[in-house]
Amino acid sequence: MARNTPENELIRRIRAVGPKPTSRNFGMRLGIGDDAALLTPRPGYETILTCDWSLEETHFLRDKHPADSIGWKCLARAVSDVAAMGGEPRCFLMSLALPRDLTGSWLSEFLGGLRRASRELHCPLAGGDTTRHSKVLINITVVGEVRAGRAVLRSGARPGDMLCVSGRLGEADLGLQRLRSQNRISKNDPALKKHLYPEPRIALGRWLADNRIATAMMDLSDGLSTDLPRLCAASKVGTHLNAASIPTVRIPSRHGARNIDSLSLALNGGDDYELLFTVSPGKARRLPPTFQGVPLTAIGEITRDRHLTMLHLDGHEANLRPAGWDPFKKQ
Amino acid sequence: MARNTPENELIRRIRAVGPKPTSRNFGMRLGIGDDAALLTPRPGYETILTCDWSLEETHFLRDKHPADSIGWKCLARAVSDVAAMGGEPRCFLMSLALPRDLTGSWLSEFLGGLRRASRELHCPLAGGDTTRHSKVLINITVVGEVRAGRAVLRSGARPGDMLCVSGRLGEADLGLQRLRSQNRISKNDPALKKHLYPEPRIALGRWLADNRIATAMMDLSDGLSTDLPRLCAASKVGTHLNAASIPTVRIPSRHGARNIDSLSLALNGGDDYELLFTVSPGKARRLPPTFQGVPLTAIGEITRDRHLTMLHLDGHEANLRPAGWDPFKKQ
Repeated sequence: MARNTPENELIRRIRAVGPKPTSRNFGMRLGIGDDAALLTPRPGYETILTCDWSLEETHFLRDKHPADSIGWKCLARAVSDVAAMGGEPRCFLMSLALPRDLTGSWLSEFLGGLRRASRELHCPLAGGDTTRHSKVLINITVVGEVRAGRAVLRSGARPGDMLCVSGRLGEADLGLQRLRSQNRISKNDPALKKHLYPEPRIALGRWLADNRIATAMMDLSDGLSTDLPRLCAASKVGTHLNAASIPTVRIPSRHGARNIDSLSLALNGGDDYELLFTVSPGKARRLPPTFQGVPLTAIGEITRDRHLTMLHLDGHEANLRPAGWDPFKKQ
Repeated sequence: MARNTPENELIRRIRAVGPKPTSRNFGMRLGIGDDAALLTPRPGYETILTCDWSLEETHFLRDKHPADSIGWKCLARAVSDVAAMGGEPRCFLMSLALPRDLTGSWLSEFLGGLRRASRELHCPLAGGDTTRHSKVLINITVVGEVRAGRAVLRSGARPGDMLCVSGRLGEADLGLQRLRSQNRISKNDPALKKHLYPEPRIALGRWLADNRIATAMMDLSDGLSTDLPRLCAASKVGTHLNAASIPTVRIPSRHGARNIDSLSLALNGGDDYELLFTVSPGKARRLPPTFQGVPLTAIGEITRDRHLTMLHLDGHEANLRPAGWDPFKKQ
């Protein structure tokens, strides 16, 4: 009888994203369908908690972004915060609000992308809340775990530490610009992959934490120029960046005409979900040039002096200005 | 330097809702200001996870509901799910999206109500996400704890169990109708209290769980006629309700003219956040008539036959029809 209301029917479809009752259930005693989910904590571990908005118009455009990518990315973004602490995801809750006309094929495609992310990132759905709204609203809470005492915070950077990043910066923003300029997009276009299907650096984050390589860490979601000041403020330090070292993307010639500068993209482009971390001088030699195929690059040094400066390509030095993504900034 | 961007300034104001660094911090190693929050689980306990939307237009009206009440209620609603498992809240995450023009006094009043709920319900803010949107969007995740093996699920009701509720049903919906009919409201109006400032039944839920009194439990958020079928479906049972036993509200005479029926309010009114629970016949005598001043009332019996029926006041018997709140129902 309870199955016949529209809300119950929607919950039934979403529940299919969760683990099968017979599968290994990661210690989840209870998934969707009760007032709340129950989880048995792993002894010797701390619990990591993080939540992330994915909102139509703010974070994605319904007529541009494939529903499948929205499903993947909403989970991947939140899992990236767990990776940035050096932890592993354990399960997630999803709050979903939908317009009434989107409960058909759009929802199926969205749930397909979400299910794929849930499996590949080993993060099963544990519960959530659904309601109706004129816009698509998604909020994801990820629960993760990290060995007690091993979490890497933003506040651990010390003067003299080497500042490093994974991957190449600006790739996701370049993809966004390409997406905006096209009428029809293919979700398999390799230039869009980093923007549509970002991969949180779970294994790298865990390796840096377990081996006590990183002294401070965060993920790059709003752009280096906006996120780096947050790490420095938390650690009460400054930094000196070397522009020539920052791993940028090559901009295809057809983009060149529109004056896109790869360094600006790397400094101010959001959504990369690469890791920004610091390494003490004594451990610098333990850092490999790549980790599972992802380049690791030293881009500067942490300073006692709390200024944030950058040595530009032409040899002049200037203060770093936060110019990444800020939803409250007047545009 | 990081403090100067508008988003960082907003985070600074919200952070004031969290526990002071010097206060007892409930095992939270880290609150707002890092990628994620860290929590040390309590040995011998399971973790409870729940999340709840509070959306402008869907759950509240910005021109009718005091911002202070929106702050209180968004947290109280989610804590109610933890109470319904027999657990206690431990901390919460808040995702908040605001129009740019609401970051002044509206936000201060909202955070005031939220802070009061956080203190009275012993549930400190651990983290969250903020962004901009044309409507006020709130998502609350509450993390709770319950002694291992003591959580009360929806699925534990057995034929012959007594069906019980706390409090009186329909009071919040009556308050909503009063709120809708008035141009200026006072947030201190006692008739509006249950609608504006609901109190999750944490102590009662915990008592019912710790003493193994309740066999199944849930909170009433969408109305008895919609929520009861969910409990019965989870337990694979039916129920026989007695309309004469349902604790209803007295409708003031000025409402009477508009044909409001107190039984319909009790069956279909949402937002009461009372507990609906079942008790095995052998434990029925252990149930007091009131718990900390809140009446506890037997309203029917659980049946093996999976139908949901009700004995009406005039002596006829009929099927119970789900007519509570369903955001996806065509209205």
